[in-house]
Amino acid sequence: MQKKEAYNVAVVGATGAVGRTMIATLEERKFPVAELRLLASSRSAGSELPFHGKPVTVQELKNDSFQDIDIALFSAGASTSRQFGPKAVEVGCVVIDNSSAFRMEPGIPLVVPEVNPDAIGSEPGIIANPNCSTIQMVVALKPLHDRFRVRRVIVSTYQSVSGSGQKAIDELTHQSKSALNCEPLVKNVYPHQIAFNCLPHIDTFLDNGYTKEEMKMVNETRKIMGDDSIHVTPTTVRVPVMYSHSESIYVETDEEIDVAEVRRVLSAFPGVSVVDAPEKNEYPLAIDAAGRDEVMVGRIRKDLANPKALNLWVVADNLRKGAALNAVQIAEALIR
Amino acid sequence: MQKKEAYNVAVVGATGAVGRTMIATLEERKFPVAELRLLASSRSAGSELPFHGKPVTVQELKNDSFQDIDIALFSAGASTSRQFGPKAVEVGCVVIDNSSAFRMEPGIPLVVPEVNPDAIGSEPGIIANPNCSTIQMVVALKPLHDRFRVRRVIVSTYQSVSGSGQKAIDELTHQSKSALNCEPLVKNVYPHQIAFNCLPHIDTFLDNGYTKEEMKMVNETRKIMGDDSIHVTPTTVRVPVMYSHSESIYVETDEEIDVAEVRRVLSAFPGVSVVDAPEKNEYPLAIDAAGRDEVMVGRIRKDLANPKALNLWVVADNLRKGAALNAVQIAEALIR
Repeated sequence: MQKKEAYNVAVVGATGAVGRTMIATLEERKFPVAELRLLASSRSAGSELPFHGKPVTVQELKNDSFQDIDIALFSAGASTSRQFGPKAVEVGCVVIDNSSAFRMEPGIPLVVPEVNPDAIGSEPGIIANPNCSTIQMVVALKPLHDRFRVRRVIVSTYQSVSGSGQKAIDELTHQSKSALNCEPLVKNVYPHQIAFNCLPHIDTFLDNGYTKEEMKMVNETRKIMGDDSIHVTPTTVRVPVMYSHSESIYVETDEEIDVAEVRRVLSAFPGVSVVDAPEKNEYPLAIDAAGRDEVMVGRIRKDLANPKALNLWVVADNLRKGAALNAVQIAEALIR
Repeated sequence: MQKKEAYNVAVVGATGAVGRTMIATLEERKFPVAELRLLASSRSAGSELPFHGKPVTVQELKNDSFQDIDIALFSAGASTSRQFGPKAVEVGCVVIDNSSAFRMEPGIPLVVPEVNPDAIGSEPGIIANPNCSTIQMVVALKPLHDRFRVRRVIVSTYQSVSGSGQKAIDELTHQSKSALNCEPLVKNVYPHQIAFNCLPHIDTFLDNGYTKEEMKMVNETRKIMGDDSIHVTPTTVRVPVMYSHSESIYVETDEEIDVAEVRRVLSAFPGVSVVDAPEKNEYPLAIDAAGRDEVMVGRIRKDLANPKALNLWVVADNLRKGAALNAVQIAEALIR
C-alpha cells in the first residue's frame, strides 16, 4: 500500500458490537486516520459515534461509499461483504473483512498478524479476518507448532454472547433478570434460554453433525497455520458470559512436551500473556480478558499418559483480538 | 442385606442441597422407609423437613445416631464421613457415602448401579458414591466400552454451582443481581466472580497441575469401569449455571465407530436418554436435565479424521444422578 501521512478509513457495520470496537481500537492504537467514514444500513444512518472526542455521522452504505477510501474494515455480515467488498476493491480499497464470506477462498489471505503476517499482500484486494474462536487458538498454537510441531487439537469452547452481537448481550441481560425474578423468559437470538444454561450449538448444523462454527475452527486453522496436516476436533458451546471466549485445548505434538519450554515459547510470543499460577488462583478468566488485547494462556499441564500432549486454557476478548483488534493489526501491517 | 417390609434410613447432611434431594428422591421412588432419621450439625438440628407430607425434625449427628438404622446416606463432607461412617458400620448399618473419603480405598466398592452393580457387597460396610462429574460420564461411556472398547477420553466440563452446595447457588444469584445492577460483587464461595464468568478451577490444585476434581475423573473412572487401561484427560470448569453439569467428551476406541450403532447401544442402556436431533435444535441442555433422572447424551458425531473416535455432549442433574439419585439407586440394589 502506498505510504501516506494518514489514511482514509471506512468502517462498515459501524454501529454493531464489533464496529464500535473497531472505532475504539483505531483510536486507542493511534492509527493514522485522515478521514473516518462510518457506514451502516439505512436504519442506523444519521446516528453519531465519537472518534477522538468528535462526533462522526454514520452514513448509509451504498455502492459509491468507498470513493477515496484506502482501507475498509467490514463487519456487517457475510452477505454485506459479498455485495459491497468487491465494489470497494474496484475503487482501489484494501478490504479487511471480518465476515466468513471470503475466508476459505483460494487466493484470499486469512491473516492473524502474529501467526502469518507474510500472507498479507501489497495489492488492493480483500484480506479476511478469521473467526474469533480460531484467532485466539492459533495465537496459542503457533509457538507450540514452531517448537514441538502440532499434530492434533481437541478443543471445547466456552463462548460469550457478544459473539452474536449487541442483541445477544441484551438477551442474556434480560433473560438473567427474568430468571432471577421467576418471570417468563423472552427468546429472540438463541433457540433456547442462554441465561444460566450452556448451548452446544453455535451457527448452523451441517450434515456431518458439526456446526459451521466448528468447521471454521477445523479449516481456518489449517489455512492460517499453512499446514493441512493439523487436525482439529472442536465442540463449540455458548455460555452465559457477556465478553471473552474461553477454550479448553488439548494439543498433541510430534516432539515430547517440556512444560518449562512451553511457558518460555508462549511467553516470548507476541500477543500472548501467560497467566498460570494456580497456587495463587491465577489462571485466565473471561472477565479479566474483556477489554484487553492479549490472548491469555494458563492451566498449562502435560497429559498424564502421553508425553507428546498437553492441556491449555486460553481466553481472549472475542470483540478485540477475536475481531476488531486483529483487523486493525492487519491494517497496521499494511501501512508499515 | 436382610429382607424387610421397610427399612430405617438415615440421611446425614439432611439440610444440604444433596441431602434435601436425597429425601425427595426416597419419596419420589417410594423407597420402603420405616423410619427416616434426618441428621445434621448442631446448627441445623431442630429444623423440620417434609417427607411424604409430614414434618421430620432434624437431629444433631452424634456417635449414637445410628442405632437401629439399616441404611445411612451420607452427604456432609469427607471429614464427617471419616468420623461417623465407621461408627454407623459398627452398629450394623450399610453406609452409602457421597463424599470422597473412601472412594479410592481398596475394598470399598465405588458404584454406579447401571455400570458396576456387581461391586455392591451383601455385608454391612461402606459403599462409596462417585464424584458427580464422573457418574454421568461413566454412564455414557459404559455401553460404548462394552461395544467399542474405550481407550482414551478427553473431557472438558461445564459444571453448575449447585455442585458447591446451596451457598454457591446463593452466591451466583446475588452476584448476578449485583452485576446486572452495576453494584460491587461479594465473593465467599469461589476465589473469583462466577456470575457471567467461567472458572477453570474446581477443588484444589495438585502438584501435577491438575485439580483434585480432575484427578477424581481420572481415577474413579478406572475403578468404576474396572479397567485401568482407560486413560482420562480432564479439564473441569465451573460455569454460571445453577443446576446440571454438561460435559464435552471425546472418546477414542479400539473398534471403528459406527454412529448408528452408538445411538443404538446408548438408547438401550438404562439411565441414558439420547437427545440428538440437531436439525430440530434438540440436544442436551442443563436447564432441561435439572430435576430429571436420566443422563442425556447428544451431539453424537464421529471424529473427522480418526474413525476410532467420537464426540459426545453429556448432561445430567448433578444433585440427582450425580449424587442423591445414584445413592438411592445403590440402596435399591441393596434391598432387591
